[in-house]
Amino acid sequence: MMWDEIGKKIAKEIEKEIMSYYGRKDKSYIVGKSPSGDKTEIFDKISEDIALKYLKPLNVNVVSEELGIINNESEWTVVIDPIDGSFNFINGIPFFAFCFGVFKNNKPYYGLTYEFLTKSFYEAYKGKGAYLNGKKIKVKDFNPEDITISYYPNKKMDLEKLRNKIKRVRIFGAFGLEMCYVAKGSLDAIFDVRPKVRAVDIASSYIICKEAGALITDKDGNELKFELNATDRINVIVANSKEMLDIILELL
Amino acid sequence: MMWDEIGKKIAKEIEKEIMSYYGRKDKSYIVGKSPSGDKTEIFDKISEDIALKYLKPLNVNVVSEELGIINNESEWTVVIDPIDGSFNFINGIPFFAFCFGVFKNNKPYYGLTYEFLTKSFYEAYKGKGAYLNGKKIKVKDFNPEDITISYYPNKKMDLEKLRNKIKRVRIFGAFGLEMCYVAKGSLDAIFDVRPKVRAVDIASSYIICKEAGALITDKDGNELKFELNATDRINVIVANSKEMLDIILELL
Repeated sequence: MMWDEIGKKIAKEIEKEIMSYYGRKDKSYIVGKSPSGDKTEIFDKISEDIALKYLKPLNVNVVSEELGIINNESEWTVVIDPIDGSFNFINGIPFFAFCFGVFKNNKPYYGLTYEFLTKSFYEAYKGKGAYLNGKKIKVKDFNPEDITISYYPNKKMDLEKLRNKIKRVRIFGAFGLEMCYVAKGSLDAIFDVRPKVRAVDIASSYIICKEAGALITDKDGNELKFELNATDRINVIVANSKEMLDIILELL
Repeated sequence: MMWDEIGKKIAKEIEKEIMSYYGRKDKSYIVGKSPSGDKTEIFDKISEDIALKYLKPLNVNVVSEELGIINNESEWTVVIDPIDGSFNFINGIPFFAFCFGVFKNNKPYYGLTYEFLTKSFYEAYKGKGAYLNGKKIKVKDFNPEDITISYYPNKKMDLEKLRNKIKRVRIFGAFGLEMCYVAKGSLDAIFDVRPKVRAVDIASSYIICKEAGALITDKDGNELKFELNATDRINVIVANSKEMLDIILELL
């Protein structure tokens, strides 16, 4: 089976099992804590277990939000966030996704981010372009008069200055999925410099954004590097253009 | 026919006609300008025309985003926003709704806000409670350690101070629909003090929020009053509690 087939199979099975929990705080409960300290709820666990059912027989390395790392000394590493946007999911906010990033010898190979509610498969194989449900996507052309961004700033940042340069703010609370909104041209940029984002949040959408033409950097504007683990918190900027990136860098 | 039946019939017919435009900037085009100066796109026009097809034979007054006011000297006034969140809709951001507010002698009587993508009917008759798809909803209990809000601030406001008091920010860009997220307890509060919001944006969700137990005020903390027209821009705060409201008022 190809990686896209495996990823989509897992995504659809997770969808089938967990959508009855959407917006149902009353039905969910906490079953543990993730390696990075977040609470694991039952629907996170169900989702991760489904992913593992498919991945374990492949003897690949797995990095996942809830369990951390399974190291099988494989050349393949699959980095997943079973539910990107858990808070949204259980609180009835329609922004959450399954994130499935495949790395070969630690290099991006394939990414799939599946938005359950709109049944949107965002995906990309390295070097082959980015797609939304099979249709090619790319970042939006930069227009300084019409900027829409999402952000997770740190306390030092002058938000007022930033807001003076942009037209609209959207903050959805699911970083991996929001990256796909940059990839398809709905947002101009997104950044997290608190930093709170981890590899599991960005691994799948990283490839999708790259293939859609986005720039992805750290907070100094250097090409982003990240380790494939579930604990490091990293600064990430994703922008549709050098001009957009410079606006953000200038304020950091 | 009852108002809820009329509202839902319109909502479902709009859904049928416009969903093929979702995320399709390439398919849409501008057909005019609304009384408050926003661009009217073809899908806005299609939606409004469907609403008018049902409302005109009733000889009621109509206030709508695109056309302004039809005054039939009726005791009934129906205030609609055919697509709350037009930018989101056409840019493939899954957060937009149909807003249908009914007033009798200018007093709130019935409100329906329909979220197309999740097929959610938020509704309320005055004095009868607020419902999401027939299930009673109410605002969230206030917990100072776990505040999630949406906001549209003015330039004077100290955002950093605000952000220090809250745990999460979500900004979806469709005020009427976001009000329903306060009503169902997904958000603690939302406010617009730019101000950019108009009666057409809030008329339906106003009744829903009231019936769900929310406080709705102007920027001085006084009970909100608004005229039923499509042009006035008003300051609005919607909060789940007095404590939440006070946190916002203190910073304005």
